[in-house]
Amino acid sequence: MALIVQKYGGTSVGSAERIQKAAERVVKTKRAGNEVVVIVSAMGHTTDELVSLLKQITNNPDPREYDMLLSTGEQVSAALLASAVIELGEKAVSLTGGQAGVITEDIPSKARIKAVKFERLKKELAQDKIVIVTGFQGIDSKGDITTIGRGGSDTSAVVIAASLKADVCEIYTDVDGIYTTDPRVVADARKLDRISHEEMLEMASVGAQVMHPRSIECGKIYGMDIHVRSSMNENKGTLITKFSPKEVKKMEKSGLATGIAFDANVAKVGVLQVPDRPGIASALFSALAAEKISVDMIIQSIHGGKVADMAFTVSRADLKKTLEVAWKIAKKLGAAEVVSDSGVAKISLVGVGMVSAPGVAAKMFETLAKNNINIQMISTSEIRISCVVNGKQAKKAVQVLHEAFGLE
Amino acid sequence: MALIVQKYGGTSVGSAERIQKAAERVVKTKRAGNEVVVIVSAMGHTTDELVSLLKQITNNPDPREYDMLLSTGEQVSAALLASAVIELGEKAVSLTGGQAGVITEDIPSKARIKAVKFERLKKELAQDKIVIVTGFQGIDSKGDITTIGRGGSDTSAVVIAASLKADVCEIYTDVDGIYTTDPRVVADARKLDRISHEEMLEMASVGAQVMHPRSIECGKIYGMDIHVRSSMNENKGTLITKFSPKEVKKMEKSGLATGIAFDANVAKVGVLQVPDRPGIASALFSALAAEKISVDMIIQSIHGGKVADMAFTVSRADLKKTLEVAWKIAKKLGAAEVVSDSGVAKISLVGVGMVSAPGVAAKMFETLAKNNINIQMISTSEIRISCVVNGKQAKKAVQVLHEAFGLE
Repeated sequence: MALIVQKYGGTSVGSAERIQKAAERVVKTKRAGNEVVVIVSAMGHTTDELVSLLKQITNNPDPREYDMLLSTGEQVSAALLASAVIELGEKAVSLTGGQAGVITEDIPSKARIKAVKFERLKKELAQDKIVIVTGFQGIDSKGDITTIGRGGSDTSAVVIAASLKADVCEIYTDVDGIYTTDPRVVADARKLDRISHEEMLEMASVGAQVMHPRSIECGKIYGMDIHVRSSMNENKGTLITKFSPKEVKKMEKSGLATGIAFDANVAKVGVLQVPDRPGIASALFSALAAEKISVDMIIQSIHGGKVADMAFTVSRADLKKTLEVAWKIAKKLGAAEVVSDSGVAKISLVGVGMVSAPGVAAKMFETLAKNNINIQMISTSEIRISCVVNGKQAKKAVQVLHEAFGLE
Repeated sequence: MALIVQKYGGTSVGSAERIQKAAERVVKTKRAGNEVVVIVSAMGHTTDELVSLLKQITNNPDPREYDMLLSTGEQVSAALLASAVIELGEKAVSLTGGQAGVITEDIPSKARIKAVKFERLKKELAQDKIVIVTGFQGIDSKGDITTIGRGGSDTSAVVIAASLKADVCEIYTDVDGIYTTDPRVVADARKLDRISHEEMLEMASVGAQVMHPRSIECGKIYGMDIHVRSSMNENKGTLITKFSPKEVKKMEKSGLATGIAFDANVAKVGVLQVPDRPGIASALFSALAAEKISVDMIIQSIHGGKVADMAFTVSRADLKKTLEVAWKIAKKLGAAEVVSDSGVAKISLVGVGMVSAPGVAAKMFETLAKNNINIQMISTSEIRISCVVNGKQAKKAVQVLHEAFGLE
C-alpha cells in the first residue's frame, strides 16, 4: 500500500463540477489500494475576491487578519471536496492547516512551515479515511492562523508529503507537465518524463511558471518525488526527482541539456567607470538589497586597471527604483554614468550533465552567433548557462537553441 | 469600565460599507471607556451561497463537512470587521469560535455550547484589544469545528457575554426593538423599553421573529440582560431583562399585558371519537414525536364518557405528514375520523402579571366575542393566554385586542 499525496490547484477545484472530477480521481486512487492525503488550494478566484473585499475596507491590511480572512478560501474547497468524496461512498475528513498539525513561524502572511505534527493525519488515515487538508496555511505557536505566502499550497503539499514519508507528491494543475521549453515559443517542445529538483529549480526560477521555487526547494531538501500532471486527463506528467549518481554520470557523458528556460521580463543596468577600490560592489548591492531589489546576474569588468564597469540585471518591474538607488551610489563612488536597457531577456540552458561536458557552452555561444544574436552578458552555474540577449531576439534564441541541442 | 458584548447580524455586516459602520460603533463604544467583545454573523447571503454550492455536490451533506464549510462565513466577516476596526486606529483581533474557547457538544450542525474557556478572550481584552468572535460556532472535544444550529450567533453572543460576566449583551439587528405586536398588523404598535426573558420567550415562540428562543432561554438561565437595537441608528431598543419581584408585583396589580404575539402559520387537527381508554394520547403524540412533528396546543374533550375528541395544532408545514400519522393511529385506536383545518391562527396575549390578575382572560374572550371572532381552542400558561381563531380573522383579532388592552 502506497501513501500518495495529491495537490489540486485553484483551477482544478474551480467549480462544483471540477471538485466532483477531482473527487473521482481521489477515490480512484484510494480504490487502487493507496492511502490518500489531498492538499487543496482555494477555488478559482476566491482569494482575489476576498482580497478585493478587504481593499474596500483598508489599504494597509493587518497581516494577522489578512491570514484569518484568506485562509477561509481553502477551508471552503477542502470541505466541498470532502463532501464530494463522501458522496462517492468513501470515508473522508477535511482538516484546516492547524487541525492537520501544520506548525509555522509566528509571522503572519509569510510564515514558513516549521513542522508537521502528523498524529491526527496518521490517525485519520488509519481509520481508512481520505484526508483533505487546506493548503497555503498553518497555525503559529499562539494557535493563530497563518498563511505561508511564497509557494503556497505546492509547498504545503511537498512538506506534508515529506513529513508523512509519502511515496509521491502529485501536483495536479492545468498543464501536462514540465516541457523542454515554453510550448508557446517552440511548437515542438517536448514534455519531460523526469527532471531533477536542481534542474527544475533553474527552470522555475528563470521563467517556467508551473511551480513555485520554494516548493521545489522543499522537495530537494526532503528528497521528495513530485509528479506534476494535468487534472484534465490521465496522462503521466513529469516526475521531479533526485537523479541517481549513475543517471547524473550518464547525462554528463552525453552532454545533453534538459531544457531551455527564459525570462523576457529583465532589465540590465550598468554603472560605468567606477574608481576601482575595495568595497564598491558591496556599497552598490547592499543599497539595492536594503530596498528589497533582487539582483540576478552581476558582471564586473576592469577598464585599464583604474576604473571598473559594473553590470547587473533586475526584474523589469524593479528598474525605476533600481536606477534611483544606482544613481545615488554612483555619485557617492564617483562613477561616470548609470545606463540601463529595459529590453533584454535571459536565456538559460539547463541540464545536470552540462558542467563537466566539454563544449556545451561553446556550442550555445556558437549557435547564437551563427544566428546573429549578440550575447550581452553570460553567467553559469553547475547545471545552467545563461546569456542575456536583446529582448527582440529572445524567441529566436530559444528556438535555435532548442533545435541545436536536439530537445524536440 | 463596563464590559459590553455586541452582536451584529448578517444584514449589519452585509457589505464592506456596513462593516465599516459597525466598526465605527464598536470603536465608539470602546472609546467611551468600555471593554468590547463583538460577535458576528456571516455577511448577508454568504451562508445561503455556501449551502447552494454544497447542494450542487450532494443532497445528503456530511454534517461535519457542512460545519467546516459554513463556519467560513463568520470567519470572513470577523476578519473584515477586525480589519475595519484596526483601520480606525484601535487594536483588534478576530477569533474563531475555537480560538475564543467556545466548546460544544460533539454533535455536528446542532451542537450546544457546553462551556466558554475564556482565558484567551480575557488575555486579548487585557491587551486593550477589541475582540471579535465568529458567532454560530465552536469546537468539539476532538478540535473539530461545529456549528450550533438553533439560535446561532444570538446564542453565541448571550453565552459568551454570560461567561465573561458582561454588563450587557447588545444585539444589533434591522429592527428598532421588540414591539407590543407586529407593526405591520397594528400601525400604532409601541416599542417596549423593557420585557422580561419569560415574556420574550412567549413573544418569540409564538411569532415575533426577532431573536431565536434558544438565545432568550440562555439569557434567562444566566440572567443576562439583552439589549435588542437597530444597527441603523442610535436609538435605544428593548432591554430583555429579569424583572425584580417588585416590578412583577406591580404588573400583577395593574393586570397589564405586555404584548400580543400571533402565529398565522398554524393548522388544527382533530381525531374524533376515540374510544376513551388510558394511553390514547400517548399513542398519538408519541407517534407524532417519532416523526419529529412538534405539537403545540392540545385539547382532549369527552363525548358522553365513552369516546374522546383530541384536537391539537401543528405548524402548517407539518400538516400533511401529521395527517398521515394521525390516520394511521386513528385506525389503530378505533377513532371515527380525522379532520383538519389548515387556515387557523394562534393569538397570544403575553404579560408577567396576567395569571394572578383577575379578569384578563375574561376581557380577552369578551373582546373577541364582541367582534364576532369565534374562539376554537384556548390554552394558557403563567404569563400567556392563547386562542386559536379562524385565520381570516387573525389580523382583526390582534388589532382589537391591542386596542382593548391599551397597548398603543
